Formats: sequence, C-alpha cells, structure tokens
Amino acid sequence: MPGIGPRGATRLVFYLINTPSSYIENLAKLFLDLKKKVKICRQCFGVAEEEVCSVCANTKRLKNLICVVERPIDLMAIEDVGGFEGVYHVLGGVINPLDHVGPEDLRIKELIDRVKNLEGEVEIILATNPTMEGEATALYIRSEILKVRKDIKISRIGSGLPMGASLEYADQATLSRALEGRRSI
Amino acid sequence: MPGIGPRGATRLVFYLINTPSSYIENLAKLFLDLKKKVKICRQCFGVAEEEVCSVCANTKRLKNLICVVERPIDLMAIEDVGGFEGVYHVLGGVINPLDHVGPEDLRIKELIDRVKNLEGEVEIILATNPTMEGEATALYIRSEILKVRKDIKISRIGSGLPMGASLEYADQATLSRALEGRRSI
Repeated sequence: MPGIGPRGATRLVFYLINTPSSYIENLAKLFLDLKKKVKICRQCFGVAEEEVCSVCANTKRLKNLICVVERPIDLMAIEDVGGFEGVYHVLGGVINPLDHVGPEDLRIKELIDRVKNLEGEVEIILATNPTMEGEATALYIRSEILKVRKDIKISRIGSGLPMGASLEYADQATLSRALEGRRSI
Repeated sequence: MPGIGPRGATRLVFYLINTPSSYIENLAKLFLDLKKKVKICRQCFGVAEEEVCSVCANTKRLKNLICVVERPIDLMAIEDVGGFEGVYHVLGGVINPLDHVGPEDLRIKELIDRVKNLEGEVEIILATNPTMEGEATALYIRSEILKVRKDIKISRIGSGLPMGASLEYADQATLSRALEGRRSI
C-alpha cells in the first residue's frame, strides 16, 4: 500500500492484534463496501457514489466547459479550490511510451465522443500536469479534437511561477515558460 | 554577511589566521576593487562594469521590450535562461508599506521617463515576483505607465504551475491562478 513501509506495516499489524474483533470486522466490511459503493461516473470518469458523479449531476455546472485532468485526485484538487463552474473529464493517466501507456489506454475516445455532441460555445481546458508526458498528452488531445471539430476553444492551464515564488530561485524551464506565457494586463 | 553564521565566521577567521599575509592582502584588495569596479548601469540600474551594462550596450537587444524586475539578481536569473531579446529595468525592490518602501523609493519614475521616449511598438513586461507586494507593484506601475502613454502593451509574466509540478500537490492560490490564466492553444 502506498505510504506504508515495512515498519509501518508491522506497527499496524500489532495494533490490529490488540484490537477487539468487532472493530476488525467492521473495518473489513468498510473495505468491501468501498469497492462496492464507489463507482466511476459514466460521464466524466471521476469517482461517484451514483451512476453519475455529483459534479456532472449538478444542473448549475456548465456542460460546455470541460476541464480534462489526468486522475480523479486532480479533479478533487480543482474542486477544493472552488470557483470552477464547468465539468470534468478524467483521462485515467497520460501518454507514456516508457510505461507502455498509449492514447488508446486513456479515455480520449470518450472525450471526443462527449465533445462531438456539445452545443453552443464550447471550451475544453487541458489540465494535464505540466510535465513532459502531460504536455504531450495535451497536444495529442488538441489535435484529436480539431480532427472532429474546429469550432471550439481549446486552452491549456497556465504554467509559470507559482504564487509566492521568487524569480531568483525559479528553475530555468519555469522561468522560460513564465516569460513566454506572459499575459497582457 | 548573509549565509555566514557565528560558527562559519569562526572557521573563516581561523582559516585566515593560517593563511600567508600576501593572500589576505590580495583578498582585501579585491574587496576594495569590488566597490570601485562594480557600477550601476545608468539605463537599467542593473550591475555593470562600465557606465552602461553589457545588456543595454548590446545593439542587438530590442530597446522597445523592457522587462521590469525587482533586483539585479532577478535580471541575472532571466539572462541565465537565455532567449530574452529585450532589455531590463531594475526597480530596486517592491512597494511594501510594512517596510516603509513606497513607490518613490523605487526606480519607477526612471522607468516612466524611459517609456516616454521609446518609439515604435513598445512592450513592458512586469516581472516582479508573484507575491502580494510584487503583484501590487506591477499594478501600480501599470497605472503609472497608462497615465503617460496608452499605446503600449503591458504584460505580466505567467504564473501558475511550475514545470514538472502536479495538480495534486499544488497550493490553492497557484491552482486558481493556473485555471484563470489558461491560454488558448
């Protein structure tokens, strides 16, 4: 399990040994329920308790503004910030040839299908991480969307200096990006 | 001296005691030369060996593209990245009421004077740090420039997720800025 090493595991086992059986049974039941209750939203592929997640089910969210993220946890990070009025699309990863992950392993086809059916002014925000793989995936999705529709706005999340940072300590790639990505004010 | 604590200072003193006098005399001379030789560029207020720094003296640099930074070290950080074709303007700090630094303590008047005399297509990049003070200073300079000239482009360096970062671990202010500052691709 991530974040639990051999020592942590040993501690947990000894903790469980000294715990009443009822507690362990309850815990085991919760684990089983986790797998049963947590579903994957059939629209955005984020985590959901129903067929459709709470974001997709919310009629106030703009269905024409789709934020494309790598994993459900990225969706949660943006939701935690608040203020985003659109919906999401979870890819399930990024294109990574070294890990044998190709475009067909991600939910790109599903995104294209969603995009095809949208009406009105559409914007797709490609919010994959600003890593090599995230950038490549964003560019790939952009070209795939443009193949089926040319009338929609495709944007990429801003990258540059994080808030509170200093130019002096910024890495060169970030500084270079911050200069390229300057915006009129 | 920054970065040298009591223990480091003691080590340095003992090192110097065990060093030939000629070495110490040479070192002392270099210190004196430092103050004599390093000048402040009269155009951009960066460090220079002559009246004008090497960037301002370079005829290939675009004089109509001015990158406004807080300190000379920020100028050096951008120069280290390479690729920037314009010139600089060093403010000498940021507006910070808590430290009793007002606009009159910075080289804002000098910037306005430079901007007044520029011809052709002018762009001013406000590259103060993305901190509270840096943002406030950028907005102040923007309004001061607009008072004298409305025909120039004023931009702010990009802020958002640094390269290689992950949405999952980004702070909320940065994530919010990355979403707001998205760019069409």
